[in-house]
Amino acid sequence: MSDELMEKAARLDTADELAKHREKFVLDTAPDTASGASAVPAGVYLDGNSLGALPAHVPDRVADVVSRQWGELRIRSWDESGWWTAPERIGDRIAPLVGAAAGQIVVGDSTSVNVFKAVVAGARMAGEGRDEILVDATTFPTDGYIAESAARLTGHRLVALDPAEIPAAAGERTALALVNHVDYRTGRLQDLPGVTAALHAAGALAVWDLCHSAGALPVGLDEHGVDLAVGCTYKYLNGGPGAPAYLYVAERHQGRFDSPLPGWNSHADPFGMTSGYRAADGALRGRVGTPDILSMLALEAALEVWDGVRIEDVRAKSLALTDFFLECVRAYAPAGRVESVTPEAHGERGSQVALRCAEAPAVMAELIRRGVVGDLRRPDILRFGFTPLYVGFADAERAARVLAEVLADIPPAGTADFPPAGTSDGAADLPPAVSPARAR
Amino acid sequence: MSDELMEKAARLDTADELAKHREKFVLDTAPDTASGASAVPAGVYLDGNSLGALPAHVPDRVADVVSRQWGELRIRSWDESGWWTAPERIGDRIAPLVGAAAGQIVVGDSTSVNVFKAVVAGARMAGEGRDEILVDATTFPTDGYIAESAARLTGHRLVALDPAEIPAAAGERTALALVNHVDYRTGRLQDLPGVTAALHAAGALAVWDLCHSAGALPVGLDEHGVDLAVGCTYKYLNGGPGAPAYLYVAERHQGRFDSPLPGWNSHADPFGMTSGYRAADGALRGRVGTPDILSMLALEAALEVWDGVRIEDVRAKSLALTDFFLECVRAYAPAGRVESVTPEAHGERGSQVALRCAEAPAVMAELIRRGVVGDLRRPDILRFGFTPLYVGFADAERAARVLAEVLADIPPAGTADFPPAGTSDGAADLPPAVSPARAR
Repeated sequence: MSDELMEKAARLDTADELAKHREKFVLDTAPDTASGASAVPAGVYLDGNSLGALPAHVPDRVADVVSRQWGELRIRSWDESGWWTAPERIGDRIAPLVGAAAGQIVVGDSTSVNVFKAVVAGARMAGEGRDEILVDATTFPTDGYIAESAARLTGHRLVALDPAEIPAAAGERTALALVNHVDYRTGRLQDLPGVTAALHAAGALAVWDLCHSAGALPVGLDEHGVDLAVGCTYKYLNGGPGAPAYLYVAERHQGRFDSPLPGWNSHADPFGMTSGYRAADGALRGRVGTPDILSMLALEAALEVWDGVRIEDVRAKSLALTDFFLECVRAYAPAGRVESVTPEAHGERGSQVALRCAEAPAVMAELIRRGVVGDLRRPDILRFGFTPLYVGFADAERAARVLAEVLADIPPAGTADFPPAGTSDGAADLPPAVSPARAR
Repeated sequence: MSDELMEKAARLDTADELAKHREKFVLDTAPDTASGASAVPAGVYLDGNSLGALPAHVPDRVADVVSRQWGELRIRSWDESGWWTAPERIGDRIAPLVGAAAGQIVVGDSTSVNVFKAVVAGARMAGEGRDEILVDATTFPTDGYIAESAARLTGHRLVALDPAEIPAAAGERTALALVNHVDYRTGRLQDLPGVTAALHAAGALAVWDLCHSAGALPVGLDEHGVDLAVGCTYKYLNGGPGAPAYLYVAERHQGRFDSPLPGWNSHADPFGMTSGYRAADGALRGRVGTPDILSMLALEAALEVWDGVRIEDVRAKSLALTDFFLECVRAYAPAGRVESVTPEAHGERGSQVALRCAEAPAVMAELIRRGVVGDLRRPDILRFGFTPLYVGFADAERAARVLAEVLADIPPAGTADFPPAGTSDGAADLPPAVSPARAR
């Protein structure tokens, strides 16, 4: 069984047109053997949906930003190194990855802050009588917290619904709906075209959070008429820890985008330094304060890995990887120990596999110890992200195989000799490495 | 005259106890001569009040963050490299510089975003009947724009006043006043203790913007009972371009600090990922989304230059530097060409000198070309910032001397042969280097 799947993995890797991009990234490799055989991966990184791996050329680029642009040119770099225009320039670089024409995306601030801009500005655009904001009840929590704050400040009523319920619920009182394109827990891909069309039919706006889809699958913001969108850049876009997020404002809405955070960077004449605010034209209205240059330019460099990559090819490989991983899990894992909560249907699947497992905390800790890095979503989800630019089919097979070994070593809850006697609560004794799962 | 002032500068530099810190920074140096004579400064950087110079140890530290923490440890760094706790840890590092006990400052987001948090949360704290927000009419513009947005969202009335008028204007309807500690244009130091006390006497809160004072002079947040404060870290704190800002929430207010940006990082149990928001205790409530790690840890490294430095000594040198610069300008500059708008009185002066000059755009462009980097505040202010950790008295003398030379070469407006015939508008033909003056 194992031999057969390992052979299949090798065939799939050989045929993989995207495999060549793997060398653009820094990944774990064991030291070369004395025989001169090439290095083999020492770990399997399936947490690129939380923090993307480091593109190998980024350290030199960041060093140049720090030592030359900041250290030598200093203040002159705002012009000479293009710092001032970075938010919109990098936005234009992200745009094709999410199906947006240029001039509609600015980079800056965190996802949470961008959700706030989008929900408040969207609620203002929606007009009189539309006093209700719908929010994805399965959302990554921060979107819900921020939407609640926005609703409180703008006097709207917040209604949390499963995304599938939103089309029917949208009505004449609906200002907008804020929905996650891919569910961060289950990996479910929501129906962006359908939900957007239903919202429009009700006269409401569609605001999408692309954190778990951008860079993993085609989004088609312009094609599907999305109104506003936000996303982070440190997952599939590999921008680095806490890299700045982005805001998409469809061109047709830019003239009436009324930001709740009208910082001086969004002013029509920022260096006029007048006391009266006058919004800039275009996507620039989404800017706020001074952009965070080190992180921003690390992101800009990281985006170069997408040169020559078609997002449709990424999607095809992503589905093949998650299909194959599920096949391996079914083949290897002890019966009844894990259950996939990620949809089987390709049209409903993002780029991760989430497995429900009663012993998830202890299992993920042990997986990480054995070199298979996924993450835990409390209380019982093992989450494995598949980043097609640097994860291959052999990685998927190995991850499933090690998972099966770990499950064999950790008895089902209730029968347990694991964790060892004396530690009554597995979760409380996790090694530090298991909690990382930081950063959504 | 010039010889005398150059000798005085040399004496002052020799006696300067802070001079030894200069070597911690990357500054312009001419190549060593063949004779082995030590390198001499090739430029004078008087724009550290816009972008602080690079501390020499920062590039290696950033390289470690990128290559090892991100590249090798990846997601594990959220715990193992202390990423998750960086906002409060770095806040505690800034705290002594602004006279705050630990546990009251978090780092993250831009100054503008922190102004928004502070003004909305402050307005909420102020309680019923207090429907008025006072804002410094001379403020750096972004504070005014954001305060206006906050007032609009919370239903408060915004009143812009000169800081000197605030004590008399504060009354029973005043929720809070937002004031700049040092005026970014004129360099005037406002009366933080007096204005704060007057606001408190009226039952209102004092919210201070420390962008132009933190790291240049003692602030005494705790001592003077300031309620909320914000500041940037890329000026006198040398955190790097667009480095994250900070928010101070006095301990006594933390329990009722009700953030308008309640992102998941401010949740009492962020990894519980529950749909209901519950605020963390303490200054953590000021956090929002995932912190921008590259910029944040560059800042953390940069703050090490303050080890062993007393802010009172920095203040004494700052005043001596600006005194001496003004003395040199008076001695060298052609009569009637420049006028200081920075207060003479030490108690009213920050750490910059602002000179009004009718030909300011052309003069600053030429100063920069000759190696003296200050900045321009339109339409007619030449701004020179004095950062005591790395600017010396010889720098001040040289800057004044070069300024006088430039003024001699650029005739007064109306009599002009400069810029050369054919370029009718000096401002329109400025070399790129003159507009930098970016980033407040």
